[in-house]
Amino acid sequence: MAYKEHRLFEILSKQLARLPGLGPRSARRVLLYLLNRKDDELKPLITQLQTAADNILHCGLCGALDFIDPCIICGDNGRDKKKICVVEQMSDLWAIERSETYHGLYHVLGGVLSPIDNIGPDELNLKTLASRCAENSISEVILATNVTLDGQTTAHYIAELLQQLPIKITRLAHGVPAGGELDYMDEGTIFAAFKSRRDLD
Amino acid sequence: MAYKEHRLFEILSKQLARLPGLGPRSARRVLLYLLNRKDDELKPLITQLQTAADNILHCGLCGALDFIDPCIICGDNGRDKKKICVVEQMSDLWAIERSETYHGLYHVLGGVLSPIDNIGPDELNLKTLASRCAENSISEVILATNVTLDGQTTAHYIAELLQQLPIKITRLAHGVPAGGELDYMDEGTIFAAFKSRRDLD
Repeated sequence: MAYKEHRLFEILSKQLARLPGLGPRSARRVLLYLLNRKDDELKPLITQLQTAADNILHCGLCGALDFIDPCIICGDNGRDKKKICVVEQMSDLWAIERSETYHGLYHVLGGVLSPIDNIGPDELNLKTLASRCAENSISEVILATNVTLDGQTTAHYIAELLQQLPIKITRLAHGVPAGGELDYMDEGTIFAAFKSRRDLD
Repeated sequence: MAYKEHRLFEILSKQLARLPGLGPRSARRVLLYLLNRKDDELKPLITQLQTAADNILHCGLCGALDFIDPCIICGDNGRDKKKICVVEQMSDLWAIERSETYHGLYHVLGGVLSPIDNIGPDELNLKTLASRCAENSISEVILATNVTLDGQTTAHYIAELLQQLPIKITRLAHGVPAGGELDYMDEGTIFAAFKSRRDLD
């Protein structure tokens, strides 16, 4: 009789393999790593994932993932409440916060418009954006969607959505990234960097 | 006030980043993937990990990870109980089983001898190997540790450990892997392939 991996091993491997960045082989490695470290790694991980699952929610104002509603950013009186930065995902919010350059509010879309994937405006956290801007007299909306086709399409869609409101709408600058070497940049980046060139201070 | 990722996000990211194959960035991606799919992915994963944590054990005979003791292989009467294949890890057992070429028993060491990492014979599942071979009149022990320095050292150690017993001790053939191109092989592999060359049938 051929040996079959236990159904639970198989189920777990397959579920781990669905995680971003993992494939069948790395999922098996992760599984064995956890099973071989039941008390040191597996059990704490379960407890923490369970706590997260029990408490995670989306902020009713901005859509950010958090354990309180309003989220820690929307509830922070030290932040500039006249600016909203629109991002695709929570990871983008984290990236911007790590840079410590922005101290306003956010609006987390939860994705981008993507006809191919059947994602329209109703699938995104867009319904409340215009009213949120109007009711809170927001002065600036910064579009920080990714520099991809879908990201830019989404930015244009939001710009149109808000054009009736007396709001300055900006987007992040496109250009050569810090540490970037021209030789390795694609034409789109070089084009954007030339188009947005500035006078030397 | 600078935004700090919630402590639980931070703890979870860090723990996920310790998993093999993941780093800080991919751990955050995995975390967001799970938090954004609470009901479809996160909760089932927690349940299955919990079931695994509650039931996982090492087979008292061979050391394999399983949910029953003796494990499914040691308890399978259809298998050749005169042969033991010694492997480093459970993943090696799975790899051999996937190849469907071997139908004997296993002995899972749980690692290799590695002076640098302070892993000696006592840290491995080696204590019972000799008595297991003697008591069950094992006829052949196949050393299938990896073709690394530590793996081969461990194989030699086990060969010496068993040399008093009337057992045939073999090791897996070393040579060019299936689909392998000589141009891409290291000298060690080519040396082994030449040394073990065979007559054309």
